[in-house]
Amino acid sequence: MGTTRTDLAVESLENLKKAKNFSSLEGVAVQESARCGFPVTAVAVTDETGAQAIGKPVGRYATVDLRPLFRRETDFFRRGCRCLSIELRNLLPSHLERGVLVAGLGNRAMTADAIGPLALENLLVTRHMVRRQPQQFRHFTPVAAVATGVLAATGMETMEHLRGAVETLRPAAVIAIDALAARERTRLCATVQMGNTGLVPGSGVGNHRKAVNAETLGIPVIALGVPTVIEVSHLGGTQDSEALFVTPRDIDAKVRELSRLIGYSITLALQEGLTVEDITGLLG
Amino acid sequence: MGTTRTDLAVESLENLKKAKNFSSLEGVAVQESARCGFPVTAVAVTDETGAQAIGKPVGRYATVDLRPLFRRETDFFRRGCRCLSIELRNLLPSHLERGVLVAGLGNRAMTADAIGPLALENLLVTRHMVRRQPQQFRHFTPVAAVATGVLAATGMETMEHLRGAVETLRPAAVIAIDALAARERTRLCATVQMGNTGLVPGSGVGNHRKAVNAETLGIPVIALGVPTVIEVSHLGGTQDSEALFVTPRDIDAKVRELSRLIGYSITLALQEGLTVEDITGLLG
Amino acid sequence: MGTTRTDLAVESLENLKKAKNFSSLEGVAVQESARCGFPVTAVAVTDETGAQAIGKPVGRYATVDLRPLFRRETDFFRRGCRCLSIELRNLLPSHLERGVLVAGLGNRAMTADAIGPLALENLLVTRHMVRRQPQQFRHFTPVAAVATGVLAATGMETMEHLRGAVETLRPAAVIAIDALAARERTRLCATVQMGNTGLVPGSGVGNHRKAVNAETLGIPVIALGVPTVIEVSHLGGTQDSEALFVTPRDIDAKVRELSRLIGYSITLALQEGLTVEDITGLLG
Amino acid sequence: MGTTRTDLAVESLENLKKAKNFSSLEGVAVQESARCGFPVTAVAVTDETGAQAIGKPVGRYATVDLRPLFRRETDFFRRGCRCLSIELRNLLPSHLERGVLVAGLGNRAMTADAIGPLALENLLVTRHMVRRQPQQFRHFTPVAAVATGVLAATGMETMEHLRGAVETLRPAAVIAIDALAARERTRLCATVQMGNTGLVPGSGVGNHRKAVNAETLGIPVIALGVPTVIEVSHLGGTQDSEALFVTPRDIDAKVRELSRLIGYSITLALQEGLTVEDITGLLG
Repeated sequence: MGTTRTDLAVESLENLKKAKNFSSLEGVAVQESARCGFPVTAVAVTDETGAQAIGKPVGRYATVDLRPLFRRETDFFRRGCRCLSIELRNLLPSHLERGVLVAGLGNRAMTADAIGPLALENLLVTRHMVRRQPQQFRHFTPVAAVATGVLAATGMETMEHLRGAVETLRPAAVIAIDALAARERTRLCATVQMGNTGLVPGSGVGNHRKAVNAETLGIPVIALGVPTVIEVSHLGGTQDSEALFVTPRDIDAKVRELSRLIGYSITLALQEGLTVEDITGLLG
Repeated sequence: MGTTRTDLAVESLENLKKAKNFSSLEGVAVQESARCGFPVTAVAVTDETGAQAIGKPVGRYATVDLRPLFRRETDFFRRGCRCLSIELRNLLPSHLERGVLVAGLGNRAMTADAIGPLALENLLVTRHMVRRQPQQFRHFTPVAAVATGVLAATGMETMEHLRGAVETLRPAAVIAIDALAARERTRLCATVQMGNTGLVPGSGVGNHRKAVNAETLGIPVIALGVPTVIEVSHLGGTQDSEALFVTPRDIDAKVRELSRLIGYSITLALQEGLTVEDITGLLG
Repeated sequence: MGTTRTDLAVESLENLKKAKNFSSLEGVAVQESARCGFPVTAVAVTDETGAQAIGKPVGRYATVDLRPLFRRETDFFRRGCRCLSIELRNLLPSHLERGVLVAGLGNRAMTADAIGPLALENLLVTRHMVRRQPQQFRHFTPVAAVATGVLAATGMETMEHLRGAVETLRPAAVIAIDALAARERTRLCATVQMGNTGLVPGSGVGNHRKAVNAETLGIPVIALGVPTVIEVSHLGGTQDSEALFVTPRDIDAKVRELSRLIGYSITLALQEGLTVEDITGLLG
Repeated sequence: MGTTRTDLAVESLENLKKAKNFSSLEGVAVQESARCGFPVTAVAVTDETGAQAIGKPVGRYATVDLRPLFRRETDFFRRGCRCLSIELRNLLPSHLERGVLVAGLGNRAMTADAIGPLALENLLVTRHMVRRQPQQFRHFTPVAAVATGVLAATGMETMEHLRGAVETLRPAAVIAIDALAARERTRLCATVQMGNTGLVPGSGVGNHRKAVNAETLGIPVIALGVPTVIEVSHLGGTQDSEALFVTPRDIDAKVRELSRLIGYSITLALQEGLTVEDITGLLG
């Protein structure tokens, strides 16, 4: 099959476990738990040894297993939003008064890459409201949103696009939503990975080659991704010159549902006191 | 890999050739040629023996190899349109005064399944013009268009949707545009198959289970399809409960370009005397 | 200004009142009340005298004033949905086991005419689920949906499109969502009118010239419309050959919000026991 | 009617002529001609006196009357593209090796404001190609594109969005496409205005309050706009708290056609040796 790559810290861990038959790994702390009925794996990469081993920068990662959502367990949407919003809040800086820039990466015209831009449609954007009527909206965190588009349509790299926006807005943090690649079919459209180290170059469905992180942007970058594809380099014995994507058959419905979940979850993480129903009423 | 299925007559032929080491097949006539610089394979299934062997109903099929298009050979778009329009015209009834209904099958929200609805955006729709000003538009073939949508969004099968439209419009023919499955990676987004036997149930990216053909609709149905996916039932040794789709990485750009090619080609086949540039100016 | 036309029964009534200084009108019963905090005007046209006077067929109409929604009064979205769903349920037949076809009329590419197709994106479509797993989904009313598109894109009239679907599905009723024309600026995007007499030809933003009603379709047709435009035939003294549309500046945000309200309200009217939050989780 | 505002230099001139019965105006030179069959009015504002009188900054403006296009005169699309591309080229700097950033301003979800983002879909974006394969694409001007979105969806002003992109790309010029307001109904969707002074704050359909021009961006900004609305502050005697928009009934078809014309014309102006048909083939 020639599957080549994973963006998921939990899959890198699994591979290491298979290869080395180890029970613990230097520089990597793993903790499994559950929140609101969803299994959560927290991975802390604590030093460069761990970073080398797992192929992820030093930092904190949380992976939520979304399968209870698709089993339609009681109250699934609200519990899913609550789980994701708490995990996300834990990765964000404490003080967000300067606001948050939410970046939807990827290609709206390609289903497997559309999670970023579609999530923005389910996000409550508030920066302009807070600026115009600061007293009335004083309880809101200012939120701006940008869909960075794709190279073929803009001629610009994601990083080129975001740097300008960050320089202009000077927010407290960036949340970057993107589609990821996984190795295991069961994780496709069934997992959310968050991390406080931004996006590693080369990740995701597209070719975002310049890192989007605290080093390049100067502020914390929280990455939030969903694996939607398995990348394969050859099929049935033939080596292909160009990689192929493997996706579930119902990718469109899954991506739409996950985008809604993510947009609502980010809104809940950033705005205290709102409910799912409030967001449905307030979305533009 | 467990690749299971092809919608392409040329791939069924190849399989037969490999399996039986035959040079000719009873009930199937194959002719290879070129038109406007594009390789064309014409397959005529002449009796039930041939139909059984190749897995396609008795009828005529033409497959155009589009690779010269993506090599950007001189004048590629106009030549591609001309090639497809002539092949399509050969499959259509001679008399089209009663008009043609062009059906865009598939799911606009899923890139690999969006060729049908996107092609309609590049099609010149004329039925309403001919009806309102029959004298002014007397040289136009009346063309109506319908995007049949997908079961999850409409609750209706493609066939249920089309039957009503055909009963109301009573056109001379239906042209049904759909995404197909192929076995060979090199054919993905690089081949157009046309045939005068409609759509066989179970074909395509979706699950269009009721046949769309002359028997069920009462008029000739010309199917025009592009393979955009390889269906696989298991990856890397694991049998999956649900089939997966394999697509090229640049599926979105390919689908957009092919939709434009198909919309223009159908328009050229149906309206005499128009040029590519005319259509660009006239599209709604 | 040359404002020419209204689709709203309440505006026809106002005109009559101004013109005739009457307090009651033969053949027309008007009742004002409130439901869930929203003002509701119920108009019953009881005979042909009333129908002539008010320019609407004999039947029942309910108009909901949505201004509390845009004042963001407490719990506005849930209360709005509940109000509309009850009013709609009162106009629908009692028995819906055969299902309901929801038709989104109008042009998705024109903001002021997009309420119909956009509302369908917020509607729970269930017919295919009920048919596949009748036992599991036995509590659901089967709901199918069709966006009829516009003449310029399809070459077909709305009525031609719907008749086929109704003949195929044979549902208990049609709910037809459309954009309307009003005379008063304060009603634009701030009113929902429902009625059990279908759509009168010539209404709405487009030119739906063939009636969509029980007579032409053979089953009850409940129309649900929102005025989004004022039609004017001349501006500033100049008589125009072609009518113009007047819309609010924020028409896009209003139309998006109203489409969500309408999709959720219809879903609540048709499916017992669901909540707003359930629908957010279940939408495709 | 309370029509309040025009973005068109030619309408400001007309008003002055009516008011003052003048034949010439100090600081303003007007020249009427025709190009490729389209009437062109060139206005040069040469000093501050002229700028005050006409309400436009010192600079050059060209207005093309597009009515021959909609009369479908022979070869209308190609001639229209050619006319616009020559007028645009005359306003651009001579040397474009550093590339051009094309900005599509406005709201894709609002038909009357969608010309900017829709035009980008008909623009050949080349910057990434030139950077990757400079030798192969050495004859292309590098073109990048950005849709700036709207305040309610991004929380950012157009200017905030563009400044970052310009700082990153450092192009030779910006071309900013926007929808405009006119006073005369006959000019709606029938005129293109270009100018080398950027966008004056407060113009257009939205509320782009910060100037987008050479002063704020540091490089030449060529504005290209089409009037799609008449703004009115009251209708039929009632003063409204909020302005309304008046648009043609067929605004969606007009906007789509004009967006195609503009995207092709900008591409022709920037890339020597291409034809309309080439662009149709090459568009992504």
